[in-house]
Amino acid sequence: MRVGLIGYGYWGPNLFRNFQVSPHFEVVAVAEARQARRDELRRQYPDLKLCETGEEIVAASDIDAVVIATPVATHFPLASRAMKAGKHVLVEKPMCASVAEGEELVAIAKSHKVTLMVDHTFLFTGAVSAMHKLCQSGEMGKISYYDSTRINLGLFQPDVNVMWDLAPHDFSIMDYLLGEEPVSVEASGYCHINPGLPDIAYLTMHFPSDMIAHFNLSWMSPVKMRRTAIGGSKKMLVWDDLNPEEKIKIYNSGIELRPEAQRNILIPGSRIGDVFSPRLDRREALAGVVDHFAATISGKVTPIMGGDAGLRVVRMLEMAQQSLDRNLGVAKGRSA
Amino acid sequence: MRVGLIGYGYWGPNLFRNFQVSPHFEVVAVAEARQARRDELRRQYPDLKLCETGEEIVAASDIDAVVIATPVATHFPLASRAMKAGKHVLVEKPMCASVAEGEELVAIAKSHKVTLMVDHTFLFTGAVSAMHKLCQSGEMGKISYYDSTRINLGLFQPDVNVMWDLAPHDFSIMDYLLGEEPVSVEASGYCHINPGLPDIAYLTMHFPSDMIAHFNLSWMSPVKMRRTAIGGSKKMLVWDDLNPEEKIKIYNSGIELRPEAQRNILIPGSRIGDVFSPRLDRREALAGVVDHFAATISGKVTPIMGGDAGLRVVRMLEMAQQSLDRNLGVAKGRSA
Amino acid sequence: MRVGLIGYGYWGPNLFRNFQVSPHFEVVAVAEARQARRDELRRQYPDLKLCETGEEIVAASDIDAVVIATPVATHFPLASRAMKAGKHVLVEKPMCASVAEGEELVAIAKSHKVTLMVDHTFLFTGAVSAMHKLCQSGEMGKISYYDSTRINLGLFQPDVNVMWDLAPHDFSIMDYLLGEEPVSVEASGYCHINPGLPDIAYLTMHFPSDMIAHFNLSWMSPVKMRRTAIGGSKKMLVWDDLNPEEKIKIYNSGIELRPEAQRNILIPGSRIGDVFSPRLDRREALAGVVDHFAATISGKVTPIMGGDAGLRVVRMLEMAQQSLDRNLGVAKGRSA
Amino acid sequence: MRVGLIGYGYWGPNLFRNFQVSPHFEVVAVAEARQARRDELRRQYPDLKLCETGEEIVAASDIDAVVIATPVATHFPLASRAMKAGKHVLVEKPMCASVAEGEELVAIAKSHKVTLMVDHTFLFTGAVSAMHKLCQSGEMGKISYYDSTRINLGLFQPDVNVMWDLAPHDFSIMDYLLGEEPVSVEASGYCHINPGLPDIAYLTMHFPSDMIAHFNLSWMSPVKMRRTAIGGSKKMLVWDDLNPEEKIKIYNSGIELRPEAQRNILIPGSRIGDVFSPRLDRREALAGVVDHFAATISGKVTPIMGGDAGLRVVRMLEMAQQSLDRNLGVAKGRSA
Repeated sequence: MRVGLIGYGYWGPNLFRNFQVSPHFEVVAVAEARQARRDELRRQYPDLKLCETGEEIVAASDIDAVVIATPVATHFPLASRAMKAGKHVLVEKPMCASVAEGEELVAIAKSHKVTLMVDHTFLFTGAVSAMHKLCQSGEMGKISYYDSTRINLGLFQPDVNVMWDLAPHDFSIMDYLLGEEPVSVEASGYCHINPGLPDIAYLTMHFPSDMIAHFNLSWMSPVKMRRTAIGGSKKMLVWDDLNPEEKIKIYNSGIELRPEAQRNILIPGSRIGDVFSPRLDRREALAGVVDHFAATISGKVTPIMGGDAGLRVVRMLEMAQQSLDRNLGVAKGRSA
Repeated sequence: MRVGLIGYGYWGPNLFRNFQVSPHFEVVAVAEARQARRDELRRQYPDLKLCETGEEIVAASDIDAVVIATPVATHFPLASRAMKAGKHVLVEKPMCASVAEGEELVAIAKSHKVTLMVDHTFLFTGAVSAMHKLCQSGEMGKISYYDSTRINLGLFQPDVNVMWDLAPHDFSIMDYLLGEEPVSVEASGYCHINPGLPDIAYLTMHFPSDMIAHFNLSWMSPVKMRRTAIGGSKKMLVWDDLNPEEKIKIYNSGIELRPEAQRNILIPGSRIGDVFSPRLDRREALAGVVDHFAATISGKVTPIMGGDAGLRVVRMLEMAQQSLDRNLGVAKGRSA
Repeated sequence: MRVGLIGYGYWGPNLFRNFQVSPHFEVVAVAEARQARRDELRRQYPDLKLCETGEEIVAASDIDAVVIATPVATHFPLASRAMKAGKHVLVEKPMCASVAEGEELVAIAKSHKVTLMVDHTFLFTGAVSAMHKLCQSGEMGKISYYDSTRINLGLFQPDVNVMWDLAPHDFSIMDYLLGEEPVSVEASGYCHINPGLPDIAYLTMHFPSDMIAHFNLSWMSPVKMRRTAIGGSKKMLVWDDLNPEEKIKIYNSGIELRPEAQRNILIPGSRIGDVFSPRLDRREALAGVVDHFAATISGKVTPIMGGDAGLRVVRMLEMAQQSLDRNLGVAKGRSA
Repeated sequence: MRVGLIGYGYWGPNLFRNFQVSPHFEVVAVAEARQARRDELRRQYPDLKLCETGEEIVAASDIDAVVIATPVATHFPLASRAMKAGKHVLVEKPMCASVAEGEELVAIAKSHKVTLMVDHTFLFTGAVSAMHKLCQSGEMGKISYYDSTRINLGLFQPDVNVMWDLAPHDFSIMDYLLGEEPVSVEASGYCHINPGLPDIAYLTMHFPSDMIAHFNLSWMSPVKMRRTAIGGSKKMLVWDDLNPEEKIKIYNSGIELRPEAQRNILIPGSRIGDVFSPRLDRREALAGVVDHFAATISGKVTPIMGGDAGLRVVRMLEMAQQSLDRNLGVAKGRSA
C-alpha cells in the first residue's frame, strides 16, 4: 500500500521510520510546511515526493493511505477529505477537536468503506497489553477505581491546555482496559502561564458500574511521574511507566472485611501479600500500530483504536472541558 | 505540671512516654476504659492513678493539664469541661467534630485563660520544619500549588471516613506552611466497604491568592504513598515521607516563558536544574509537641498549633464534607 | 527457666524485652558495669537483681540460662564458666575471638550437656527464612555465587575492624543458606581512621562446589546499603534489606547458552523474565531467637545457630583476617 | 577531513551518525565484512564508498582519518598501518590487546606525528565531566577509595571475558578522574559458561597515594547496576548511571573522629548532611568525542583520551589479567 504522511514535526519521523520498515506499506510522499525539514528529507530520500501542504497528499491519486501528524485543529478537514477520496486514514491523537467532528468522521469512514484509525500508541505497549489481559480476564475482579498521575515539567503549548495534551493517553488506555464510558466528569484546573489554558488539571469521573476514575495532570511538576493504579476486588496493580525494570506490579487486593471489633487495629505493614511483576513485551509500540493498521485495512481484525474508540476519547475530553470551563468561570479572577 | 492522660489506645502510649520523660510534666493519672490496658499500666507504674473514665481526670483537683487521645466525638465534651475547670488541654487531631464545637472551644480557652493545643504532630517533624522555612522565607517564591497523595491499604474504621482520618495531617501542614484559608472546596469520593463512609476521596481547593490545592486520599491503595509537591514561582519541592534518606528534594521551578516560536520544542529531559536534599532534624516530633505545650502554657511562645489552627483545620474538613455529601448524593445508587 | 543477662548496652535492652515477654523464661538478674544503666533498670523493675559484673551471674545458683551481650573478648571466659556451672548459654555474635576458643566452647557444651547458642538474629528474619526455603528446596538450582554489599557510614569502634563488625551477619546467613565452608579466602582492606583497623574490607571466598562468594564491607559509605545477590542455575535473587516493601526479588536465571553465532547479539534489556517478591513474615526476629533457644534447651529441635554454626562463622573470620593481615602487610606504608 | 570507518556492527552506526553530522568531518568510506550490512548502507547512502576489508580504508590515499570499531584483536594491525600511512586514528576501547602493542602504537603516533585517540566515550558524559571537576578542584578532598559495581545479565562473548568487556569503562574513568596508576592489582573470577573466560570478576587495586579501588564486574546479575562510589576526606559521591534524574549525589564525608569514649555510640541515621545532585549536561557523549578528535588533530587541545591514556587502561587490564590467571590457576578444578 502506498502511504502519504502529512506532518514531519516531532512525531512524524517516528511514523515515517516505522511505515518505511513495514512490509505492508511504502511511504511515497511527505507533506511538511517547513522548507528546512523538506530539504533534510530530500537529501536522505531523493526519490520521495515532497509537498508543502497536506492537500496535495489528500488529492493524490496514487496514494492508498494517509497518515496525519499535524495539529489537532487540522485533523478533521484532512481526514474527512482523505476518506472521501477513498483513502484509509491513520490520525494522531486526539482524533479531532469535538464530538461533532468525531461523529462525522466515523460516519464518513463507514459510508466510504475505508479504515479510520487513531494512533493511540500506548495501546500497543507491553505494559498496556499486559494490563488489558489482567482486566479482561477477570483476574482483577470487579474494577473499583482507576487513578492516574501524569505530570512533568511541561512544554507550554500556546494552543492546547494540559488536558488536551496529556489526557488522551489516559482516556484511550482506560477505555481500552475497562470498556466503560463515564456518566459524569468533574474537572478543575489552574492557569499559571497562559491565561485561559490550564497547565494543571484534576479530573474525576463516575461510571455506571460504580467505578471512580481520577486524573492528576500537570505541566508544572519538577519531577516526571507516569503512574496509574487500578483497583479491583481481587487484585490491584500499579503501572509506573518510568520504572525500566518493573513497570507493572500486581498485588492481591488485600481488602478483607474484619469483624467490627477488630476494625480499630492498624494493619501493621503497608502491604499484605506477594508482589508480582510480569515480563513485558519490549517491541516498539508504533510498529504494532502500523501492523494493526495494515491488518485492519485488509479486514483481518477489528481495530482496537478505530474511529469509535477515538470518538469516545474525544467525548471524554469534551465533557471534561465543559466542567473545566465552568470551574474556571467560577474561579475567574483567580485561575482563569 | 501534673498531667492526666485520657485514652491509652493506639497513640496514648506515645503521648505517655513523651510526657513522662519531659522535665516540664509529670503524668499522674491515666483514664482508659479497657481493664486489660489499665492492668498493664498498673504492673509497670504502680504509683500511677488509673481511672475508668475521662470524667475523673477532668474533675481531679490536683491535675494541671489534660491530654485527650480519645475518639473525635468525645473531644468537645472532655476538652470544654477540662478548660472550664481551669486545666490546659492538648487534644488529638482533629480538634473536634464541627466548626461550631471548635468555635466554642476557642472561646472557652480564651475566657478561662488556659492553653488549648491540638496535637498536629507532623508540624514538629524535621521535614515540615524545613518546608516551613522554605515557604516563609520567600525562597520558594509565590506558591501556586499544593498537591498531596496520602494513600495506603487502610484500616476501615466504622465511624470515620478516609478524609477525617487522613486529611487533618495535610490540612494542618498546609495551613502551617502557607497560612491561607480556601474559598472553595470540591470533594468527591467513593465507598467500597462501608456505605456512606468514603474510603477514597479527592479534594480540590481554591484560594484567594490563586493557589490551588489537591488531595488524593485513599484506604484502597496496595502501596503506601506519602508524597506532597509544592510549586512556587522560584522553587518547587517534593516531600516523600517514606524515603528514609532524602525526604525533601528542592528544585528550581524551571518554568521559563519562551518566545512563542519555540514553544513547540520539547524540553529534552524531565528536569532542569540541580536537586538539593537538605539534612533534616531527626528528633522525635512528639517530643517537640510536648516542649511546645510547656512553652505555650508558660507564655513564652505563641502556639503554632493552638485552638485557632485546630479550628481552621476543622473548618476545611467541614467544607470538604459538605461537598462530599453533595457529590455522594448526586452519585447515589453509584458510590453512596 | 530463670535467665541472667550480662551486658545492658546497645543490644541488651532488646534481649531483655524479648526474654521478658517469653512464656518460657523469666529474667531474674542483669549484670551491667555502668551505674547509670543499673539505676535506670532499678527504677523500672524494682524486683530485678542487679550486678556489677558477669561473674555474679555466672556463679549464681538460681540461674538456669545466661545471655551474654558484652564485647567479643569476654565471650569465651563468660560462656565457658557459665557452661561449666551447668548453665545454658546464648551469646552475642561473633561467638568468640578465635577458632581455638570456639572449639573449646563447643567441647564444653558437649561435655556438660548444655545448650550453646549464638544470637545470629538475622536467621530468624522473614527474609532469611524465605531465602533458606528457596536455596534448600532446589528451586534456585545449583548456587554459583553469593555477593553481599554491607556498607554504611560507620561507627568507628576502637577495638574491632569493619570485618569483625559486619561480616558475622553475612557469614552466618551464607552458612545457613548454603551449608558449605570455603576452601580459601582472599581479603584486602584499607585503614582510614584507626591504623591497623581496616574500615573498608573486600573478601572473596572459593568453595568446593565451585561457588564464589564476595563481600564488600565498609564503614566509609555515605549511603547505607544492605544488598545480597545469590545466583543459581535456575533462579537468582536479590535481597535488599532496606526496601521496606519488597525485600526479596526472585528472577529466572536468564542464562541460556546460545549457538556461538548469536553470542555477539546484545540481550536487549537488562532482565529476562518475571519478577516475584514474596510476602515475608514480619515477626520480630529476636522473638524467634528466644523461642528457638527455649526449644533447643528442651531438646525439641536441633539448633540452626548452635555452637557448631557459631564456630564455622569464627573460622571464616579467622581465615579472612589472616589474608587481611598478609595484604595489609604487603601494602604497609600504604594502608596499614 | 575525510573519514573512513572500519566496522559497522553494534557501535559503528553510532560513530557513523556522529561523524556524519559533524562540521569537521565527512565520512567517505565504510569497511564491513558482512554483505547485508553493506547493502543496507548502499541503499541509504548511494555515494558512500563501501569496502569489504579495513585494508582498503587504511590504504586509501584520499582518507585523512580512520575510525576503528572492530574486535580488539584487530586494533593493533589496523591502527598501526593507518598511522604509518599518515592517517589520524580513533580506535574503540580497549585500545589494543597488550601493553607491548600499546607502547608501539604510542610510539608510531609520535614518530608519524598523527593523532591517536581511544573512544572512551564515558569521559564525555555529563556525569563524568561533573565528577572530574569535583575530584580535580579539590572539593572532594584527598580521595581514599573508588568502588564500582558494573553488573548485568550479559552477553557471553566467546572471545572476551567480563573484565575486558566491562572494566575498560571503569579504568578509563578512574584514570581520568584521579590520574593515578595502581601499584598492585588482585583479581579473582569465576567461569560459569565458557571455561577459561570468567563471567564474574572482582578486582582490588592499591595505589601509591594509599587509595584503594575495587571493581565488581559480572555478566551473571539478574539486575543491571552501574554504581560507582568515590570517597574523599571532604566529600563522597555516588554515581548511579541508571538513575535518569539524579545520576550523581554528593555528600559530606561525614567522618568525624570522636573522642574515644563516644566511639561506641551508634550514629543514629545512615547519613549526616545535605545531599546535592547537580544538573548534568545531557549532550550525547559521542558527539563530544568527535569534536575532541577534531580539536586534537587541529592541535588546539591535548587529548584527554589519547594513546597514553589508552595505554594506561591496557596496562591495568594486563595487570589484572595476570592476577586473574594466577587465581584461576590456583582454583583450577573449581573455577577455571
